[in-house]
Amino acid sequence: MIPSQRDVQQAFDRVRPHVHQTPVLTSRLLDELSGASIFFKCENFQKMGAFKMRGAINAILQIPLADRAKGVITHSSGNFAQAVSLAAKNLGIPAYIVMPNNAPQVKKDAVISYEGIIYESEVTIAAREAMASHIQKKSGATFLHPSNHIDVILGQGTAAIELLKEQPSLHSIITPVGGGGLLAGSALAAKYYGSYMDVYAGEPFNADDGYRSLQSGKIEYNTTVNTIADGLRTHLGDKNFPIIKTLVTDIIRVEEQEIIAAMKLLWERLKIIIEPSCAVPFAALLKDKKTFAGKKVGIILSGGNVDLTNLPF
Amino acid sequence: MIPSQRDVQQAFDRVRPHVHQTPVLTSRLLDELSGASIFFKCENFQKMGAFKMRGAINAILQIPLADRAKGVITHSSGNFAQAVSLAAKNLGIPAYIVMPNNAPQVKKDAVISYEGIIYESEVTIAAREAMASHIQKKSGATFLHPSNHIDVILGQGTAAIELLKEQPSLHSIITPVGGGGLLAGSALAAKYYGSYMDVYAGEPFNADDGYRSLQSGKIEYNTTVNTIADGLRTHLGDKNFPIIKTLVTDIIRVEEQEIIAAMKLLWERLKIIIEPSCAVPFAALLKDKKTFAGKKVGIILSGGNVDLTNLPF
Repeated sequence: MIPSQRDVQQAFDRVRPHVHQTPVLTSRLLDELSGASIFFKCENFQKMGAFKMRGAINAILQIPLADRAKGVITHSSGNFAQAVSLAAKNLGIPAYIVMPNNAPQVKKDAVISYEGIIYESEVTIAAREAMASHIQKKSGATFLHPSNHIDVILGQGTAAIELLKEQPSLHSIITPVGGGGLLAGSALAAKYYGSYMDVYAGEPFNADDGYRSLQSGKIEYNTTVNTIADGLRTHLGDKNFPIIKTLVTDIIRVEEQEIIAAMKLLWERLKIIIEPSCAVPFAALLKDKKTFAGKKVGIILSGGNVDLTNLPF
Repeated sequence: MIPSQRDVQQAFDRVRPHVHQTPVLTSRLLDELSGASIFFKCENFQKMGAFKMRGAINAILQIPLADRAKGVITHSSGNFAQAVSLAAKNLGIPAYIVMPNNAPQVKKDAVISYEGIIYESEVTIAAREAMASHIQKKSGATFLHPSNHIDVILGQGTAAIELLKEQPSLHSIITPVGGGGLLAGSALAAKYYGSYMDVYAGEPFNADDGYRSLQSGKIEYNTTVNTIADGLRTHLGDKNFPIIKTLVTDIIRVEEQEIIAAMKLLWERLKIIIEPSCAVPFAALLKDKKTFAGKKVGIILSGGNVDLTNLPF
């Protein structure tokens, strides 16, 4: 169930030429405030503005060439749609993106700017899946799930590997958890590239399926997802949950106001743009200071795609 | 009138241990959009969030020790007040900051966080200067002007020197121009560390004293300063204007809407927080694309201190 070190290393080597090695930022003031030594891995500076580029490129490069030429397909209205579009464009193949017909124009424009081909569906999950399946059959394109796909998971983990190569003595790493791809990938990175590391995730109380899944030992779902952290509304899957269950120490839940305050603090002090979902691990650290006191902590800043005309502060 | 290469080099060596060597960012998309190859020198990541730290530290280190112990004084409500406060704190001396009594609390708080000692005056320039003069006499502190002071000018120029050491083949450099310290310092850096470089500034139409001064050959003033670029409302001085007149190729004026659009584009594409004044050189480049087409252009991103609850978009 758990990929080997060789799988993880091969994904790292495969992804490397296609992504930015993103910078790691520190802040004396945020260290003083938190009591930890924090290393922020800035995937908001990644191509298309989020870590999702890593998983998309790794998954596409694992598709045999004959199939790859037929393109890839996903249904998403978020960063994974942009990631698949740009990764496919960079590799010279078509990307078909199924989006609900109520998706904001700004998200459609982002996909179009990376030459993704949009198909609009009705808003239900069933309608989206039906349309994706139809296009897949017609085109022969390969379907890519945003988080429950082993090559996507291995790709997402390469951000944490870069961080651990730069800071090998980290005690802990914290990521957000939504669909679980980044968390599972980062946990694999910690297992093979860290030494005696704890792996945590931050999660909104208002979409705490991950926390409940870790408690119950089976995949739980959200009935409502009323959180500003729009990247974290999805649930875990059968490919990433076994990894998370085995390797993750704990999931720390945070309130909406804590997410917004953490986001504002990172904007003000690091002078960087991060999206709400991206502030959740730092909010978790501030919430549970005693767990991280005196520790060297890596935080994956997952992305910076935010609507500047609609900020929560 | 023009400082020597030795003066410039000594300032660089003096300032270096006290400031961050800030990163240089590039963006393929912004290059495509502008037709130039742009290297953004990110002084928004500098200590206290702006290049002003460089000039403040250089000027304080040039004060003889016996005098330095009595502290420094300035009147400013902007980044220079914060810079003097932090530089003085780091060097273990007091900083007296005269601020108008209508200065926003957020600006006072920033100075207080760096342990600057605030004296509130009436809002007129005369009242501010009178209070500064009074405190100066009482305390023996040394007065520092934010821009019209040769050691401040030499300190501000060290950002451009860092950029030129990293990118020695730049064709042009663009800075904002307000009081003229950064522009004069950067022009000196270009003279001694660049090869056949042109030096430009961007300036708001609504505070275009710098442009008019370059045209007339004498220091001109603004009657109104109705611009969002609040760092650029001041005028040139007798210490920096001779340098600017001799070494600066041109000043390019931009409209308020162009400043806001450039700021938004930099936030969205570089994923970094910059203040309105800081967007002006990039707005100037976009305004005058043909001048910079195919050129390697360095832009000094001057600062990132912005009120997140009061954004222009």
